Amino acid sequence: MANDLLKRKKGIIFGALDEKSIAWKTALKCYEEGAQLVLTNAPVALRMGEINKLAEQCGNAPVVGADVTNMDDLKNLFQKAMEHFGGGFDFILHSIGMSLNVRKGKHYTEMNYEWNQKTLDISAMSLHKVLRTAWDMDALNEWASVVALTYIAAQRVFPDYNEMADAKDLLESVTRMFGYYYGQKKKVRVNTVSQSPTRTTAGSGVKGFDSFIDYAEKMSPLGNASAEDCAKYIALLFSDYTRMVTMQNLFHDGGFSFTGVSEKLMS
Amino acid sequence: MANDLLKRKKGIIFGALDEKSIAWKTALKCYEEGAQLVLTNAPVALRMGEINKLAEQCGNAPVVGADVTNMDDLKNLFQKAMEHFGGGFDFILHSIGMSLNVRKGKHYTEMNYEWNQKTLDISAMSLHKVLRTAWDMDALNEWASVVALTYIAAQRVFPDYNEMADAKDLLESVTRMFGYYYGQKKKVRVNTVSQSPTRTTAGSGVKGFDSFIDYAEKMSPLGNASAEDCAKYIALLFSDYTRMVTMQNLFHDGGFSFTGVSEKLMS
Amino acid sequence: MANDLLKRKKGIIFGALDEKSIAWKTALKCYEEGAQLVLTNAPVALRMGEINKLAEQCGNAPVVGADVTNMDDLKNLFQKAMEHFGGGFDFILHSIGMSLNVRKGKHYTEMNYEWNQKTLDISAMSLHKVLRTAWDMDALNEWASVVALTYIAAQRVFPDYNEMADAKDLLESVTRMFGYYYGQKKKVRVNTVSQSPTRTTAGSGVKGFDSFIDYAEKMSPLGNASAEDCAKYIALLFSDYTRMVTMQNLFHDGGFSFTGVSEKLMS
Amino acid sequence: MANDLLKRKKGIIFGALDEKSIAWKTALKCYEEGAQLVLTNAPVALRMGEINKLAEQCGNAPVVGADVTNMDDLKNLFQKAMEHFGGGFDFILHSIGMSLNVRKGKHYTEMNYEWNQKTLDISAMSLHKVLRTAWDMDALNEWASVVALTYIAAQRVFPDYNEMADAKDLLESVTRMFGYYYGQKKKVRVNTVSQSPTRTTAGSGVKGFDSFIDYAEKMSPLGNASAEDCAKYIALLFSDYTRMVTMQNLFHDGGFSFTGVSEKLMS
Repeated sequence: MANDLLKRKKGIIFGALDEKSIAWKTALKCYEEGAQLVLTNAPVALRMGEINKLAEQCGNAPVVGADVTNMDDLKNLFQKAMEHFGGGFDFILHSIGMSLNVRKGKHYTEMNYEWNQKTLDISAMSLHKVLRTAWDMDALNEWASVVALTYIAAQRVFPDYNEMADAKDLLESVTRMFGYYYGQKKKVRVNTVSQSPTRTTAGSGVKGFDSFIDYAEKMSPLGNASAEDCAKYIALLFSDYTRMVTMQNLFHDGGFSFTGVSEKLMS
Repeated sequence: MANDLLKRKKGIIFGALDEKSIAWKTALKCYEEGAQLVLTNAPVALRMGEINKLAEQCGNAPVVGADVTNMDDLKNLFQKAMEHFGGGFDFILHSIGMSLNVRKGKHYTEMNYEWNQKTLDISAMSLHKVLRTAWDMDALNEWASVVALTYIAAQRVFPDYNEMADAKDLLESVTRMFGYYYGQKKKVRVNTVSQSPTRTTAGSGVKGFDSFIDYAEKMSPLGNASAEDCAKYIALLFSDYTRMVTMQNLFHDGGFSFTGVSEKLMS
Repeated sequence: MANDLLKRKKGIIFGALDEKSIAWKTALKCYEEGAQLVLTNAPVALRMGEINKLAEQCGNAPVVGADVTNMDDLKNLFQKAMEHFGGGFDFILHSIGMSLNVRKGKHYTEMNYEWNQKTLDISAMSLHKVLRTAWDMDALNEWASVVALTYIAAQRVFPDYNEMADAKDLLESVTRMFGYYYGQKKKVRVNTVSQSPTRTTAGSGVKGFDSFIDYAEKMSPLGNASAEDCAKYIALLFSDYTRMVTMQNLFHDGGFSFTGVSEKLMS
Repeated sequence: MANDLLKRKKGIIFGALDEKSIAWKTALKCYEEGAQLVLTNAPVALRMGEINKLAEQCGNAPVVGADVTNMDDLKNLFQKAMEHFGGGFDFILHSIGMSLNVRKGKHYTEMNYEWNQKTLDISAMSLHKVLRTAWDMDALNEWASVVALTYIAAQRVFPDYNEMADAKDLLESVTRMFGYYYGQKKKVRVNTVSQSPTRTTAGSGVKGFDSFIDYAEKMSPLGNASAEDCAKYIALLFSDYTRMVTMQNLFHDGGFSFTGVSEKLMS
């Protein structure tokens, strides 16, 4: 299924680590829908080299490394992207999250606060930095669309999600705040997509993830949404069909978010 | 802009009164995106005759009258639709609302309770009746999509909206409840779209509507969403790009819903 | 524990069926905190005679039968209460819910629509009728407080709750709408309390209730709130400590509402 | 009005700057209701000396300086408090917020990121540090109650609130997360109170504050809640009447939060 939804659209995809990544699948989907892309990830992630495969499959999209907490890196990335595109562009996917406290198995009540500051910076305030770089360089075209990936732990407690719950809350707040300003200034919309738990390489880091995926599958009337489904949904949020949707958190989860308990789970 | 988003899809549109109706524009948009349609409205609305113009513009779509509070009428409508389509179909738009208390200028604190019962029946429980008719006749294909139009008065008080606020709340609850069951049974998704105030013939009935539209325009970072924008968004919710979204209330309002106050309004 | 929280306060308690009722315990608690009471229930419930025991324990509070869907009954009740109190009063508890579809085991997708109309009328619009009677008779004093009992099924799907989910949504909307008007007019506040599943005689009618109580107990960090806890909380909402809280839905549930999953449940 | 609601309760109040502070009024109210107190604030705030007046009015409550971002300071504070109380205690008020970007007039889209990190640390993660210190030292008694002050900018955009909106979102997430763990461990509840805009010394720093207070006053059916009202409400959240309420954000705002538009505002 492809419908030229993104013909003549250009955008940057942050966070494609490997084939399981939602960002990876979103890049492929956007390309399939007619978009031109620039790919980016943290320098350390680029060194793994997988992203070059993706770049080839996306019409030899440029790959530019950038540490999302570093304003100079972001400026460099946006400059290269604007050179490549010959001007402004139309969408950004922010699929970025990292928690040292989760990785190192620190319990929420015993978190290392320096690591926490990094988590908030990389996973949430990075969206501010990305948007602000675009704002300062006037890099986004009118009616551009920015999507960040989030998770329902921002609304309700899922204990294993740890400090990433706080980070996602912060991310959703930045989405609303910057969305307000960018909407007023240049009709740019900013939304989050709150996706089902997904078996990505990043997701696997979370303790008890497999049994939780199973729980969510039983709870969701349509089952869990796959990474491919999510990629399709994001592509559409970059299209002109969704121009008036902004500052929203959009659940893409098979109905999990509004199911209190399911018969499957109780039996 | 048209992308064959609804190629091979078939659906019923409820509530196209005249050219200003969101349902009218949605029908046109769906047809443009490749869908086959059946149109329906209350017999009294059909008598105005406008809908035949729409039917012509939609490839001579059949028009079938139905009182949405009457199960026999709905059954007849669904039978005719299934005959026309040669089987099940893929989407339904529920764009139905009527309040006698609003029309006759009864204040919320002085409502006529019999009229209120009609309001709830026509504006909210009708969605249950529509879905239940589909359910009983197995009229919807797997992964079908149902959208009902609602308004933010279901979440916060907008005094002039009167008893329709209660009706929309009830409608959103039916959406979740039936969405749960239909999702589990046959992967059918059910959502509401919460649209900006829109200058339709129905909307004009509401007291103070013009100054309110102005207020919402100033409050929304992107301005109010138009009926055309809404039609596009609904078409997309009928497409396969949104398969895993269900039981949601989706704000399509230029950011109004998450703006507490705007600088434009304060100045 | 009693602190004269309701000294000099007067109020009506709807819905005390038997000793397990939240309304029953609330009446006792309010009396203990210094309030004067009038008790009421549907005539058919009064015939069971239990309520007279309660009346004795509350300083021989008058018991007045009233069908909450009947405006004449409500008027009579409020007149008798005002005579008894020697004027206006300060609080109302609405603890009323009845679903024929639940009682008779009708599945949500197969509901009887006439019964549904009764359910909505008795369980939700009755709050409008109660408030409107107070409004018309100017029965509530300034800063009076009205509380209605609701359940989280108004926000998320709990399948066994059936059409009562829709009724509670409607009830919460009426709370906001009438709360807006009564707040402006006479500083009267109106709120709902969303209580943990509770083993009352009414609750027992719901299919699968015992295993659900167990589920909620495991999900809630503090465990389920008891009927006694709820009575205390309601008493406090009638006191002058909560004067500026209105149009809210207040979860009283040990944290259930914001817990997505608990470790107890997963293990 | 005082009812011994907090007889035999002991607690720490953070953030009483001067007579206009909500924390100041809460301290007075808690003392009036029978509580024993320890007062604390940042060393720089203590130097102003006002807090000693408050300490006198609260039965010569000890005043202990603490930088809430410093774990050693917090440990010292809790040790002194436990010595003073002769053991564990029952409540904490977290009324702490500081934004350098607001103070120095930096626009949200131009924030200084180092200042932002301080803002998040002082205004939000400080709650984690406070709770974690209590947790590690087992300083809170069973059924203790922790309240943090927040603002509706965490839910909807109020542009002048700037980065404090993000900080409050983060604060509310910490409330839920730590509330989950502390509830399970020791029945401790943690909630936020989302208060009307209030003319405190801190509040006055926000640009356009006066006209905004006016706006909120017109929007709220009961008008804005005062600092005194808020103090009463918080005292009650420390009492045993609210034992089963946890992980909630409680609006104390005269109905502002659920009013979409008011007739007063439109006219």
